[in-house]
Amino acid sequence: MSRGIPAPVDDGRTTRERRHQPLLIVHTGEGKGKTTAAAGLALRAWAQGWSIGVYQFIKRAAWRTGERSAFEALHAAHVSSAGAVGGPVDWHVMGTGWSWSRSHAAGADPAELAREGWQRVCQDLAEERHTLTVLDEFSYPMAWGWVDTEEVVTMLRDRPGHQHVVITGRRAPQALIDAADLVTEFTKVTHPFDRGAKGQAGIEW
Amino acid sequence: MSRGIPAPVDDGRTTRERRHQPLLIVHTGEGKGKTTAAAGLALRAWAQGWSIGVYQFIKRAAWRTGERSAFEALHAAHVSSAGAVGGPVDWHVMGTGWSWSRSHAAGADPAELAREGWQRVCQDLAEERHTLTVLDEFSYPMAWGWVDTEEVVTMLRDRPGHQHVVITGRRAPQALIDAADLVTEFTKVTHPFDRGAKGQAGIEW
Repeated sequence: MSRGIPAPVDDGRTTRERRHQPLLIVHTGEGKGKTTAAAGLALRAWAQGWSIGVYQFIKRAAWRTGERSAFEALHAAHVSSAGAVGGPVDWHVMGTGWSWSRSHAAGADPAELAREGWQRVCQDLAEERHTLTVLDEFSYPMAWGWVDTEEVVTMLRDRPGHQHVVITGRRAPQALIDAADLVTEFTKVTHPFDRGAKGQAGIEW
Repeated sequence: MSRGIPAPVDDGRTTRERRHQPLLIVHTGEGKGKTTAAAGLALRAWAQGWSIGVYQFIKRAAWRTGERSAFEALHAAHVSSAGAVGGPVDWHVMGTGWSWSRSHAAGADPAELAREGWQRVCQDLAEERHTLTVLDEFSYPMAWGWVDTEEVVTMLRDRPGHQHVVITGRRAPQALIDAADLVTEFTKVTHPFDRGAKGQAGIEW
């Protein structure tokens, strides 16, 4: 929540322009909290009344995360207030197939599903559907070569309008980091698993 | 959201015991996202139906953060569902005086207010009021010597029952880091302020 002291930059932009720059944000590194911090950012976006799109590029879909339940409640609060409170939230999980897709077969090729997800993201960005787009664990499809990093960077750089994008996950490609406006590296210092602890509800999911 | 592979540890505890260890979590470092990640963690806690207490040790109270608005909506969703959805959220901001306190004078000594906040936290921990307690920006009162770090560490180490505690802020004292179960260091890699950007609604607050 600290605000930092901006260095004076003379690039001809007004303060208003600087204050309304659409950001490409990357949360990477080996530490915990990358997705959680993106969810926290989405809370602020929700409170501003922004439309939020979350695309989780993860295989597991069977269990529902706490974040997802909470944002479903926040979306419902927005709808039931007839738009007076917060913003709308679209939450998509890849799992064994995106909900909008017909290829819902178990055993579907995750590389194919990741590409399908990215195509949908491209479409939604082109239509300026959301003010905040969260691409959760999207670093992996890039790192594994399932989705072309250069294409992603070009698409994000040229995205129209005023759309913030957050990408989370380890091993974020350098080209993405170079293109980002805000990169935070999450570094593990101490982790309870080191001491033999197990994951637990409310903390890990 | 990754789960890590726990190293085998032979300390006589069962998996169930390891899965239900109350954690002391610290988010520190110069990077952005420490408070946001704590808010994200609180989302998971909310979805579990846990009682959440947030104590923000910050001076400004005039403006309402997005996180706070969102958790007020989540608290309301919990109440209006008669407890069927989520958990209750108590959100306290130090500002120029805690809401429960009479010393609401503008110009109140922040060191005094911080101590007052910590006393309340001690009381709530002793009464096991919350399953998740967030002490936002609480590293500063310790770093500045307003609150005794050793006393904090002792109190947290000896807290009764099953209470998770998250502490955020830069310059977390070493004794606190040593006592924590989970420490994440947030490291700034690229920041838009470096490029002359200004803070903006929905992103910074």
